[in-house]
Amino acid sequence: MSHGNKVRLKDIGEFGLIGRIAKSARRQKGVIKGIGDDTAVLAYSPKRYLLFTADMLVEGKHFTKIMGPELIGRKSLACSISDIAAMGGVPTYAVVSLGVPPGLSVDYVQRIYKGMSVLAKQFKIGIVGGDTVSSEKIVINVALLGEAQKRQIIFRSGAKKGDKIFVTGPLGRSLTTGKHLNFTPRIKEAQYLVKNFTPTAMIDISDGLAGDLNHILEESKVGAVIFDRLIPRNHRAQLRNALYDGEDFELIFTLPSSKVRALIKRHNRKFKFYYIGDVTGSSRQLVLVDNKGKRRLIAAKSYIHF
Amino acid sequence: MSHGNKVRLKDIGEFGLIGRIAKSARRQKGVIKGIGDDTAVLAYSPKRYLLFTADMLVEGKHFTKIMGPELIGRKSLACSISDIAAMGGVPTYAVVSLGVPPGLSVDYVQRIYKGMSVLAKQFKIGIVGGDTVSSEKIVINVALLGEAQKRQIIFRSGAKKGDKIFVTGPLGRSLTTGKHLNFTPRIKEAQYLVKNFTPTAMIDISDGLAGDLNHILEESKVGAVIFDRLIPRNHRAQLRNALYDGEDFELIFTLPSSKVRALIKRHNRKFKFYYIGDVTGSSRQLVLVDNKGKRRLIAAKSYIHF
Repeated sequence: MSHGNKVRLKDIGEFGLIGRIAKSARRQKGVIKGIGDDTAVLAYSPKRYLLFTADMLVEGKHFTKIMGPELIGRKSLACSISDIAAMGGVPTYAVVSLGVPPGLSVDYVQRIYKGMSVLAKQFKIGIVGGDTVSSEKIVINVALLGEAQKRQIIFRSGAKKGDKIFVTGPLGRSLTTGKHLNFTPRIKEAQYLVKNFTPTAMIDISDGLAGDLNHILEESKVGAVIFDRLIPRNHRAQLRNALYDGEDFELIFTLPSSKVRALIKRHNRKFKFYYIGDVTGSSRQLVLVDNKGKRRLIAAKSYIHF
Repeated sequence: MSHGNKVRLKDIGEFGLIGRIAKSARRQKGVIKGIGDDTAVLAYSPKRYLLFTADMLVEGKHFTKIMGPELIGRKSLACSISDIAAMGGVPTYAVVSLGVPPGLSVDYVQRIYKGMSVLAKQFKIGIVGGDTVSSEKIVINVALLGEAQKRQIIFRSGAKKGDKIFVTGPLGRSLTTGKHLNFTPRIKEAQYLVKNFTPTAMIDISDGLAGDLNHILEESKVGAVIFDRLIPRNHRAQLRNALYDGEDFELIFTLPSSKVRALIKRHNRKFKFYYIGDVTGSSRQLVLVDNKGKRRLIAAKSYIHF
């Protein structure tokens, strides 16, 4: 692909762009992980890392006014909490930037904050700052800090051949069912996992199972085989929805096979985890086994944000 | 003012809104300062605080495409650095969210990042994360972390009667002269001040001298008298420009009168600080003395972001 002026963002997508930016990001003192995982990971204290992430939501793209201000506010914070969950951390403090049309009612804006506040309270997050600016369309940016114990942090890069792959819930049709607005970020599940089972890799599903599992494969330099019949699906979701729809905000994690028995034995008491396949040595190849046992390579294409 | 549906944002402005939100912000463990200063201040280490701030810039409001992508990127980071400077801190890490039209060229976006990167390098800031989304207008949010020594942090609330008021540079017409795009955030000046003179209060001028000095008066529960002839002005700036124009990104600080002699004696070697008036006991009143010695109360009205 040419690097010239005529390359448009829609041609390379978000991932192409992040890749280009990551390349130019300088190595810096105190940076354990920069661009390329669910959050940045920074040196903090002898036992803990500081996590730092931000998500921008734009009216007409990630939400429409018809969804109601509380759910819009809730979603904008929930997306960032989900990123912290995927690192094995807990969220702490948020700073919220809000672009709103000058003609919007104060009541409407307060209800956006209300939706955020309820979720913030639930996860003990302090909303400690805010910036409000004028904008034609509603734009919300949540910058979120979190913490993770050093011995509990999970990167995308640790999956090993032979590990088992799990997801935390059914997938697909999040945008049509409204799950993308009212999902509960998987902090409890992730904390339970990192305290008891030490997953080798973890990521949250914002771009679809295929796309996000592929991020683990890329970063871990492994392959995977997943089974059609094992992939849990939301009501009326087809396989293609489970594979490619975005914004489920469930977690994908990998676990050494030696830990699986204990997970299966214990998890039913509290949480539900779904085994969907195995990590393989065939670098970066994602194979789907259909219900007749037939294998096919599936594309890592993601839910397209552009 | 009614709290009903019919109150529009343009009626209460940014400060009315922040006031309403601040009221609902909960007290939280580890929060030294939440909404109501240049940055949030959080517990960090035995000797240091963590600073956390975000600024959102919107095309057509804070910049237009004609200004060029490098300067747009530069400004979006510079505004947040200025907030860190005003606390007596140094910036450390940034996460950048970018909303861009899908038809924009990759080259253009890379030049936005380039403008940021040059400034980031200058101030040893690590850009450790990013989010890129589709948006009709360009929207840039920079979330910035910083650190401050506990014994060097400066709030808006510490000004005392008898203190002298200074600014770090000439004011007015920043938007017409282009200063708002190419200013250097006053980190060096602020670090020099907090290490040598312990200012009692400090703020950066984003909303104009009158508005931002008024924030110090409000938070410190004091008044001020400032002198027309002492207020440094940019080329062709009238008094009203110096008082009310926004985005100068100079610092206002207050200093005990006992320290003034030392500051005046030493500062010419390195930096220029301008004495503009005195802190008074007459709570929250801002008085201007004109060139004939006549005193008048001046409105604390700010540069209107809505």
